[in-house]
Amino acid sequence: MGPAATADFLGKLVRLTPASRDQEHLRSVVCNFPDIPDRNDAILSNGSSPLQAMVRSLRILERCQVKYIAMPCNTAHYWFDALQEETALPIIHIADAVAHSLAAIGIVRGRVGLLATTATIQAGVYAERLRRFGLDCIAPSEDTQVQIMDVIRKIKAGETDTAARPSVERIAADMLGRGASAVVLACTELPMLFPDGEAHLLDSTAALARECIEHMYPGQLTR
Amino acid sequence: MGPAATADFLGKLVRLTPASRDQEHLRSVVCNFPDIPDRNDAILSNGSSPLQAMVRSLRILERCQVKYIAMPCNTAHYWFDALQEETALPIIHIADAVAHSLAAIGIVRGRVGLLATTATIQAGVYAERLRRFGLDCIAPSEDTQVQIMDVIRKIKAGETDTAARPSVERIAADMLGRGASAVVLACTELPMLFPDGEAHLLDSTAALARECIEHMYPGQLTR
Repeated sequence: MGPAATADFLGKLVRLTPASRDQEHLRSVVCNFPDIPDRNDAILSNGSSPLQAMVRSLRILERCQVKYIAMPCNTAHYWFDALQEETALPIIHIADAVAHSLAAIGIVRGRVGLLATTATIQAGVYAERLRRFGLDCIAPSEDTQVQIMDVIRKIKAGETDTAARPSVERIAADMLGRGASAVVLACTELPMLFPDGEAHLLDSTAALARECIEHMYPGQLTR
Repeated sequence: MGPAATADFLGKLVRLTPASRDQEHLRSVVCNFPDIPDRNDAILSNGSSPLQAMVRSLRILERCQVKYIAMPCNTAHYWFDALQEETALPIIHIADAVAHSLAAIGIVRGRVGLLATTATIQAGVYAERLRRFGLDCIAPSEDTQVQIMDVIRKIKAGETDTAARPSVERIAADMLGRGASAVVLACTELPMLFPDGEAHLLDSTAALARECIEHMYPGQLTR
């Protein structure tokens, strides 16, 4: 999984927790194993599957006696059911977290735009899951998707400067123009381009962090 | 330990690693257990010791088969020797990491200023360790130390806005005026006030991250 996205997730988990001193914060164990097989290659090009490596991380987290598991990688959710079958520990689905964050801002029907890896979109990681919440997904055109993947690859290479922001914003604006009620940054690399947030772009990393806090501290979080 | 500082450390570990794609990054396991007894209270006011809780984290990391251990909390290094005695895994000392980072910018003798918790200073976490590298430490006056602790507590409460910067910069400037060659941000909360770095303030969190990378990828890092 993307290691910078994992660090970003941990930062958001801490910042969003209602706490005023160390002792009020959640305990967490982070397995940051970025060297597992590439998720996009596995889904789109028949590359090696990362499933076995992810199951090894599951086993580590089980030994650490965690209560819930979250994966701050949208593409990895392609293996969500396979992973959930492997463990009795509940895994929090990032698309459910996004649906709850959308509901919290009043979006409970209609269409939402998805900015995600090609694999996340083609595998339908969101489409099927958001349908349960009454939401439909809009994906970018093929050309636009190529641009999104380029942005994601650059962020993975450490380029989180603001140069890529305008193209992401343009693509999002186009989706909103086509009738999307919101646009989801459904790849955890993308929110790192917008460290201060962006009103019409829903951050899936922050949504997952909020969902974890909600599970651990029910009712204490104002979304 | 400070959970925001832990997330900041993980972010720096990722950003400082020479890697252009996920698979080139280091593996890490983070035990983020902020609810251990307060380190300052334990050292200064005879409060409950966090040692037993830290040993439990050690055991978890041993089970995760890590190669090295780093603690992104300067005050916790009061228990460094006790922890190192408990495990065969090498623990990387944050003051050694700082000494190596100081050497990399040409500071190998003379005095350095310390901005740290009162416990870190009174327990001599740095003084004895830096002496081995030929460096002496300057601590703030008692009044100034009270201000530093206030800044640290605010950061722990989530206030990382820039309001506290000028007072930290003034204290650092005073130390440089008193003959310090550099000022070390020797509490991992403090560097969060300066996300873009600050030439004359040495970031102990980044120093620890560099030291970890140097252990894992010897010789590949230009400090």
